[in-house]
Amino acid sequence: MYTYQYLLDFTKNVFRKMGCSKTHAEIIADVFLAAELRGHASHGMIRIKDYFELWKSGRVNVNPDVKIVHESLSTAVVDGDNAIGMVAAKRSMEIAIEKASKAGTGWVATRNSNHFGIAGYYSMMALRHDMIGICLTNANPLVAPTFSISRMMGTNPIAVAIPSLTRPPFVADFATTPIARGKLAVAEKKGEKVPSGLVQDKTGKPSEDPAILKSGGSMLTLGGDRIHGSHKGYCLSAIVDIFSAVFSGANFGPFVPPSVAYLPVLDKKVGEGTGHFFGAMSIDAFQPADEFKAKMDEWIDIFRAAKPAEGQDRVLIPGDPEREAEERILREGIELVPAIREDLISIAKVLKLEFE
Amino acid sequence: MYTYQYLLDFTKNVFRKMGCSKTHAEIIADVFLAAELRGHASHGMIRIKDYFELWKSGRVNVNPDVKIVHESLSTAVVDGDNAIGMVAAKRSMEIAIEKASKAGTGWVATRNSNHFGIAGYYSMMALRHDMIGICLTNANPLVAPTFSISRMMGTNPIAVAIPSLTRPPFVADFATTPIARGKLAVAEKKGEKVPSGLVQDKTGKPSEDPAILKSGGSMLTLGGDRIHGSHKGYCLSAIVDIFSAVFSGANFGPFVPPSVAYLPVLDKKVGEGTGHFFGAMSIDAFQPADEFKAKMDEWIDIFRAAKPAEGQDRVLIPGDPEREAEERILREGIELVPAIREDLISIAKVLKLEFE
Repeated sequence: MYTYQYLLDFTKNVFRKMGCSKTHAEIIADVFLAAELRGHASHGMIRIKDYFELWKSGRVNVNPDVKIVHESLSTAVVDGDNAIGMVAAKRSMEIAIEKASKAGTGWVATRNSNHFGIAGYYSMMALRHDMIGICLTNANPLVAPTFSISRMMGTNPIAVAIPSLTRPPFVADFATTPIARGKLAVAEKKGEKVPSGLVQDKTGKPSEDPAILKSGGSMLTLGGDRIHGSHKGYCLSAIVDIFSAVFSGANFGPFVPPSVAYLPVLDKKVGEGTGHFFGAMSIDAFQPADEFKAKMDEWIDIFRAAKPAEGQDRVLIPGDPEREAEERILREGIELVPAIREDLISIAKVLKLEFE
Repeated sequence: MYTYQYLLDFTKNVFRKMGCSKTHAEIIADVFLAAELRGHASHGMIRIKDYFELWKSGRVNVNPDVKIVHESLSTAVVDGDNAIGMVAAKRSMEIAIEKASKAGTGWVATRNSNHFGIAGYYSMMALRHDMIGICLTNANPLVAPTFSISRMMGTNPIAVAIPSLTRPPFVADFATTPIARGKLAVAEKKGEKVPSGLVQDKTGKPSEDPAILKSGGSMLTLGGDRIHGSHKGYCLSAIVDIFSAVFSGANFGPFVPPSVAYLPVLDKKVGEGTGHFFGAMSIDAFQPADEFKAKMDEWIDIFRAAKPAEGQDRVLIPGDPEREAEERILREGIELVPAIREDLISIAKVLKLEFE
């Protein structure tokens, strides 16, 4: 079991050794550890190796000049200069917040970036400014549109954080697929099947094999099949892709570059790097912030009081599971499985750092 | 079979006789007929009776003063003055477009409105201005959050229209439930079961009975159950509710007023009327419009070329089915089932109009 601080410091040092500035290394470490704390270990320490390998192959820029290339009162397009995703993303969300403080709302599309960790991190940056925060990103193609067997989209997440007055805030952060990619990997490692409605084989037949992606299969969109609304999940995933990449000039659809070095750089480009989209909406631009936040408390209380189905304890508010994970993990510490620990030890050796 | 023009004129005359101005009656008729043309008859002529009955009971205002009550450079809150939904919605979307033409984007939350027909209509208003259009609305509570048996949310739709250059535009318009409410009614009338994953009974057990809402059941969110991502559908529906109603000061969650007169006015209010949310995003605020639209053509071509699964003809782009319905229905005419025709004949009698 590791403490939060130990892993935070180690992560910071890893990225410092890669050549990142102190500020950038701190940002990156903060996002990695936020994923661990919020119970999304799939976006935490397990990914450091991916970033390390991309850096070794010279596929990310550790000294990026992240800058606005186009703007209006309420919008901007940011070029991430091939930064490690967290660096481009945090700056982009800051710009969205600055725009919102003047124009009521701020909307930033970012190109030429890379995998940025958990989307919820950036949406939650808006909360302390009494703003709603929104974050979208496209990702490596693994997901087939309804009626198709082609991998055209990533698990393209949507994160929305909404401030409240005395209750914990509403924080939704979810992939536009029924489950996250990481959960397939977990089922595969455990030798378990997955329920049908999550993946399909290479001909489009329903599959329960969590390893089906390795033999030409694909993930399904939220909804699973047409009768259960998979075309709506397809719409959502497509909207995330277009907002993240067509607005910004990044690669879209099947051309989003891989976030791991063991997959080759794609031959064809339709834009620059990975694309993200950020929004900040000042509450004061709609309602006096305290009135809105009191209403959100009421909204939260009303939904929390919804009657549970038989066999269920309670009805959750978006953000509850992550907040509870955070409280528990801060108290108990962060567990790393042996394979991840070994990866980190060997990275530490290469970079002349200590990790045990 | 009726012509488009015949039903448009009749609908306009119905609302003129109710006391609407010529302009308002034209807006309302245009939205009703757009639903018919786009193949969403569930939001077309079948609903005129509901609006007529609400008017007879004095529950809607046919001479509303729809006005901005709060604004910033990129936002506004509109009070619909208890207007027929289309009137408040169209004006609100116009305001969003005006804001976007100055500030890059425009965002309008509307309270004190009523059922507004199809959400896609308003999102598509943005297209001719080279803007992306967004429209959300909350609706009568029929849908239970994950793990719950309480009807807390409507089928809360999301509509997003994105302009393209030479291809037909991308138009997504979908309820945040696996299927629309109207499709349950159709299955019920046909005496058919529905697949599991769409509705549950009053204890939360899966049900295949399309009439289950009449015995305390509820609709499920997109995803169906937890393992298939129903919590993500719940997040989406909740976000639509909060943007539509907490931003605007309308009723939210289980307190959204009924859109039909045979259901009583609710005892408790948490705001004013039904709430909507509108967005307009000027393409020029991100990219030169023609470059963006050419990229959208490319996006559309790439997705249209995705490989169909075995047994499928083709992969659709959001908006394809509605556009094809529109072409067919304009050519062939609009069919009304006898029960709807009879309703319209009796409404015509009361209002001293002709309908045959």
